[in-house]
Amino acid sequence: MPAAPLTHDAAPSTCCAPLLRPAADPEAARRLARTFKALSDPTRVQLLSIVAAHEDGEACVCDLTEPVGLAQPTVSHHLKILVEAGLLTREQRGRWAYYALVPDALTHVAHALHDATR
Amino acid sequence: MPAAPLTHDAAPSTCCAPLLRPAADPEAARRLARTFKALSDPTRVQLLSIVAAHEDGEACVCDLTEPVGLAQPTVSHHLKILVEAGLLTREQRGRWAYYALVPDALTHVAHALHDATR
Repeated sequence: MPAAPLTHDAAPSTCCAPLLRPAADPEAARRLARTFKALSDPTRVQLLSIVAAHEDGEACVCDLTEPVGLAQPTVSHHLKILVEAGLLTREQRGRWAYYALVPDALTHVAHALHDATR
Repeated sequence: MPAAPLTHDAAPSTCCAPLLRPAADPEAARRLARTFKALSDPTRVQLLSIVAAHEDGEACVCDLTEPVGLAQPTVSHHLKILVEAGLLTREQRGRWAYYALVPDALTHVAHALHDATR
């Protein structure tokens, strides 16, 4: 088994138990934490859920302000964070922006979480 | 189908597309976001991963400081957040505290995420 970046074989301690397998490397942990940060706000979880509940998994920004009771600039700010995290896509059509779930993005997050702790 | 708390049938709009199903209610979104907040820090993702990589899925706090390169009070603070989020258990044995994964806690998070966006 290759050496795990996070093991500490070189510094034995009376209390140290062996690692069964390599733990998540710092870069993988950083990427995963960034996605969780995008999901760490109740409004953003609601927005994601509302987009997913729409026909074709797509919703106009004009459909999203009322359900969460926030002004459009605030909603757009939250949606931007979800787009930057790779969880939603954004497409401008005329006056309105339309948001859709990135296929399998949440499945990948769930798998990454399980891989990190399997 | 019962009325969804987040639908907005009473306020028709030219742009509104129909919801196929109820979206996540605000309380469920709040609970889920709280768990994601605990996972939104790279150190905490690493700590969870390192605990999971240990034999029996349990690790002494004394095994956790070196891999993440932080002092024990800082590590204990991060571990406390993971315990409060229901992701780890903590057991004091003599001088040291031992942390273990809560069985199925991460599976439940993954399922809740999928339920909110299925």
